[in-house]
Amino acid sequence: MQIFWRFILPLLVIVSQLLVLSLNAAHADEGMWTLNGFPTDKVQKAYGFSATQAWLDHVRLSSARLAGGCSGSFVSENGLVMTNHHCAHSCIEQLSKSGKDFVAAGFYAKTEADEVRCPEIEVNRLVDISDVTDTMHTATKGLVGKPFNDAQKSEMSKIEKDCSGGADTVRCDVVTLYHGGKYNLYKYHRFQDVRLVFAPEFATAFFGGDPDNFMFPRFDFDISFLRVYENGKPLNNPEYFKWSEKGGKEGDLTFVTGHPGRTSRLLTVSELEFQRDTSLPLALINGSELRGYVTEFQNRSEEAKRISETILFRVENSLKAFKGKEATLLDPAFFDKKRADEKSFRSKVNSNPKWKKEYGSAWTEIAQAEAELKKIYIPLAYTENNRNMNSQLFAIAKTLVRLAQELPKPNGTRFREYADSNMPNVKQTLFSEAPVYNELESAMMSFSLTKMREALTADNSIVKKALGKHSPAQLAKILVEGSRLANVEYRKKLFDGGQNAINESTDPMIRFAVLMDPDARTYRKKFEDEIEPVLKRNSEKIAQAQFAVQGTGTYPDATFTLRISYGQIKGYDQDSGHVEPLTTLGGAFERNTGNDPFALPASWLKAKPKLALDTPLNFCSTNDIIGGNSGSPVINDKAEVVGLIFDGNIQSLGGDYAFDPVVNRAVAVHSAGILEMLSKIYGADRIVNDLTKDPKKTALAPLKAER
Amino acid sequence: MQIFWRFILPLLVIVSQLLVLSLNAAHADEGMWTLNGFPTDKVQKAYGFSATQAWLDHVRLSSARLAGGCSGSFVSENGLVMTNHHCAHSCIEQLSKSGKDFVAAGFYAKTEADEVRCPEIEVNRLVDISDVTDTMHTATKGLVGKPFNDAQKSEMSKIEKDCSGGADTVRCDVVTLYHGGKYNLYKYHRFQDVRLVFAPEFATAFFGGDPDNFMFPRFDFDISFLRVYENGKPLNNPEYFKWSEKGGKEGDLTFVTGHPGRTSRLLTVSELEFQRDTSLPLALINGSELRGYVTEFQNRSEEAKRISETILFRVENSLKAFKGKEATLLDPAFFDKKRADEKSFRSKVNSNPKWKKEYGSAWTEIAQAEAELKKIYIPLAYTENNRNMNSQLFAIAKTLVRLAQELPKPNGTRFREYADSNMPNVKQTLFSEAPVYNELESAMMSFSLTKMREALTADNSIVKKALGKHSPAQLAKILVEGSRLANVEYRKKLFDGGQNAINESTDPMIRFAVLMDPDARTYRKKFEDEIEPVLKRNSEKIAQAQFAVQGTGTYPDATFTLRISYGQIKGYDQDSGHVEPLTTLGGAFERNTGNDPFALPASWLKAKPKLALDTPLNFCSTNDIIGGNSGSPVINDKAEVVGLIFDGNIQSLGGDYAFDPVVNRAVAVHSAGILEMLSKIYGADRIVNDLTKDPKKTALAPLKAER
Repeated sequence: MQIFWRFILPLLVIVSQLLVLSLNAAHADEGMWTLNGFPTDKVQKAYGFSATQAWLDHVRLSSARLAGGCSGSFVSENGLVMTNHHCAHSCIEQLSKSGKDFVAAGFYAKTEADEVRCPEIEVNRLVDISDVTDTMHTATKGLVGKPFNDAQKSEMSKIEKDCSGGADTVRCDVVTLYHGGKYNLYKYHRFQDVRLVFAPEFATAFFGGDPDNFMFPRFDFDISFLRVYENGKPLNNPEYFKWSEKGGKEGDLTFVTGHPGRTSRLLTVSELEFQRDTSLPLALINGSELRGYVTEFQNRSEEAKRISETILFRVENSLKAFKGKEATLLDPAFFDKKRADEKSFRSKVNSNPKWKKEYGSAWTEIAQAEAELKKIYIPLAYTENNRNMNSQLFAIAKTLVRLAQELPKPNGTRFREYADSNMPNVKQTLFSEAPVYNELESAMMSFSLTKMREALTADNSIVKKALGKHSPAQLAKILVEGSRLANVEYRKKLFDGGQNAINESTDPMIRFAVLMDPDARTYRKKFEDEIEPVLKRNSEKIAQAQFAVQGTGTYPDATFTLRISYGQIKGYDQDSGHVEPLTTLGGAFERNTGNDPFALPASWLKAKPKLALDTPLNFCSTNDIIGGNSGSPVINDKAEVVGLIFDGNIQSLGGDYAFDPVVNRAVAVHSAGILEMLSKIYGADRIVNDLTKDPKKTALAPLKAER
Repeated sequence: MQIFWRFILPLLVIVSQLLVLSLNAAHADEGMWTLNGFPTDKVQKAYGFSATQAWLDHVRLSSARLAGGCSGSFVSENGLVMTNHHCAHSCIEQLSKSGKDFVAAGFYAKTEADEVRCPEIEVNRLVDISDVTDTMHTATKGLVGKPFNDAQKSEMSKIEKDCSGGADTVRCDVVTLYHGGKYNLYKYHRFQDVRLVFAPEFATAFFGGDPDNFMFPRFDFDISFLRVYENGKPLNNPEYFKWSEKGGKEGDLTFVTGHPGRTSRLLTVSELEFQRDTSLPLALINGSELRGYVTEFQNRSEEAKRISETILFRVENSLKAFKGKEATLLDPAFFDKKRADEKSFRSKVNSNPKWKKEYGSAWTEIAQAEAELKKIYIPLAYTENNRNMNSQLFAIAKTLVRLAQELPKPNGTRFREYADSNMPNVKQTLFSEAPVYNELESAMMSFSLTKMREALTADNSIVKKALGKHSPAQLAKILVEGSRLANVEYRKKLFDGGQNAINESTDPMIRFAVLMDPDARTYRKKFEDEIEPVLKRNSEKIAQAQFAVQGTGTYPDATFTLRISYGQIKGYDQDSGHVEPLTTLGGAFERNTGNDPFALPASWLKAKPKLALDTPLNFCSTNDIIGGNSGSPVINDKAEVVGLIFDGNIQSLGGDYAFDPVVNRAVAVHSAGILEMLSKIYGADRIVNDLTKDPKKTALAPLKAER
């Protein structure tokens, strides 16, 4: 799945803030282009299509960002947002309870009153992009080390606060593009009242399960519909994608607009080696163990299975992606080329005395910083980044403890995640009414504490402080069962009470978070003061060298901000033969074994006689996407929805490092299939009506004012 | 733990039959020397000790091999054998049952009548070594490919059969040393009536659990005593190690005799790359997932915990070792040196036209074979090598199906594991009365089938054949619950009935093994006909080049045959400071938290007032050992037992690839501590008496006749 997981971000950030510019021109169909950097000429040349500014503006305003790590699209005048089932999975699980499992049974709001608010989903619409490169460069001019980092973060927080003006409905992010070559300010309309309208059964949304994940041909109905509300009413929404009832066929030009999370195409060799030899192996080993643990946890009971489904899916999905990434990094052909390209580029830089003086040492300095990072990677991972600490209660406690310390500080000197501009999102998560399950919490804490002891060793002072004479399982039970943090009112009380309330709290999870905080801060400080500024400064230098030597004209690495990619619906060849680009509803019935994960739900079996079995179900295209693009619309040149991205093929997993136009494919649900299933299997007439309503009948004011 | 696991042998064999000769002279204290290749001059020079032939013969005859993958020593005139608790763990578990858990409670036979036979332990004593190099080389002269491999295997089976004369009490193995540079015939006395005499509680045997495994300082009483019987009576045993009641102190010269399983110190660069990039990552990922799965399986119930302890220990132990190996292979300094050494050696070979013609192409041909192996590695692992297929019932079924096909063939053309000389061992395992637990079996089969589907993909023909429309969990339940193979009589019936009985059996596990067999044979054949002979032939060539260029005088890579290493009791320095070489009983009480895995058993707490707390408990020495050395005696220059090897330190894990005398340490229980604990904690007077009885009172005939 192409989801971009918030939970695994902390570690990914470490390895991904170090990106540098590509040394190669983009291949055909390659690229995740910014909306203010659309490659009009390339697309015109390849496909004969000229994008106008109006087309680009409409596409931007009809696209949606799910702040938790996904993409979506506005698809009706009354605020309907289409995304993947797996992007709404945690909401669907949070709204379920024992005996009322919407993940298994699906969900459909027959009336507006039946639409239920998701506790933690935030939708953003990108209303403006402006350039702040000069401001940012001025703020850090002549600085190195800690002063560089402090100045940069402070300036970002200031720009963001000035932009939002403190309004909760405005979100402003300074986005680092080309690793500091450019800084853009992205201004969003922020929607936090987002309600669930429709989700099919998990059995069809994730048909084929982990075995079919990242595979093609595919037969998944991985869809959900949310609705954005404003002031308690469905959004009055003038900008949305219209629906293509026929959808696309082989060879059709397609665009994908969405939010690719991170790519690493432009890393230096030493940064790639760090991923290959340090961060990815650790992620694979830890993730695999957690996978086995949760797999067997599911056998405890039906309820245990239900409450751990999201985490199992998340772990399995990440693992499969990590395996694909590691396979690319272990491919000698890939690595040899990276080495040769870097060598050649460095030669060019060094051949010009000015460039050599300005940029020549950047690669060596980055390699030295990587070596320093390697030394603290394990303790950093297990303290500040809470590797494997998959406990909601611990996350809540840590947030409360940190907020008490950070919020009294001036905005610009806080940890970035608690800057004023981020507080609406922090509060939404912190005060979420999503249920907390003690059985799962205890199991996850026990696992996490065991792994921390293993990684740091039993004699490590942090481990001794954490465990005392307890076993991990004992301590986990004490912390979870004794905690009142599942109660949102109690969280609010601690939040409002600030440092005094934290000091006075006897909640064991709060006390544990207080106990663990100093070491976490120590390692974070070491990273932020000594390693991160070296990486940032020198990545900026390499970006500038790139501009100097080869000019602009390429796309920046992905940053979980809006991008557009172009391509076409097209099959490919692999060892087992040619793969056709479209699958049909009939194919799903052929693949059905009746047993999980290849069991179609009862609703499908019942509806089969009514269905046009030759209706397209899924398709693949050459669009360049990556995790975070989950839920992206696939549109045609008329900006009509022809599909819904939900995955890439197995060959696309190396796309983190390089795009291979021959076999790299995006995988989507087909717009004609969506209509067929919504109407004939689910009787979801309200949605079909929203999607296909004649737009000429509506007359809303355009969104221009907001820009 | 330094155990050499039989279960993980199949895959290790693939990567380890490819070893080639060292390009370097051995460092101080380095080496796992054969008993007929003892480095008398080196030891004399380093420690002033001259080993006589009589000393070496005595040491050889007093050493024991546990055929399942461990070492041991004869320590009394009445057949007492000392080894590790973790080497007898599966026996102790097999003799336990719900409510009578000897793993948790320990075991002590107060009288001879209380000694209980272990279902699957075979002890070997090495009575003779002879050289068969010429015979073996003659048999394969001028052959390549399949004919080479066939001729070699056939000749080995013939030599072994001639040697044993069909007697079940004689075991003969042709051992490939220096990767074909030499072939030796090892003749053993085989003992299959081996009874459990003593085992302490698991809590002290494995004090510190996985967190302390491969660590030092250490506080483990990882010991067990077995007794070898012959004709229903304790063995009349003239050759055994006497006991040193005081044991050793810092600086004392020590020898370790035991059976190191495999080392890879002499692999070519391409073979190491295969391990680093292909086999080890797969082992780490799969092992980690299995670890998580079994960890949570243990939470099902007390009984689930009990029946899965052996497998959890095995998996965790292997994983920690694999992690250490991978860390060494990912160390650029290690790999750069390997590359430089190989380059320099190849230059020397190529500088002599005769050598160049004879040996020059060997490295390239091995690299090509590795590339071929990489192509079939996954299906080979999941078919023939049954990666993760941790099911006893499946293993039994596969053995029965194979025996029905193989036994009617002439001895020399069978799969090597079913040659006549191996049949006593095969039968002991096949007809073992060890209990089979359906709950564990179902869980393991379900896991294994899931992993097979994942690795080969859901659309693979082997997977489709195996699963049909079942889910892995469903199929596992059908196979396990429907099978009668837990009944030893039924196994015997199928064994005696041969192919007809297999054909007629409706046992679902038998039918499943029949179904899976052809594909497993296909991949094995591809490996044995096309890859293995290339590796063997060219490894032989490199060995011969080594002899030609640098002469002999070094030790061969480990082969799970008897070796002797020399060294001294000595501490070391690491990041956290200097590590003293000895720990005391008092240290164990200091480390006790009362909680698993740091909880000393009640027997220790009760006996504490009686104990001399300054008695040495564990120590470390510079002896060069590796997995398989578990249970090896540590002896002094008078051939007295001063300790019992049970582990290496974390720095020793890279010892698979290179020995670092500065920090690589063997870890042992101290002989003085053993006596203190046996007498004061366990009141095991029978054992103390056996160990310390004045040998002059006994007058048994020497073993010479048997040689």
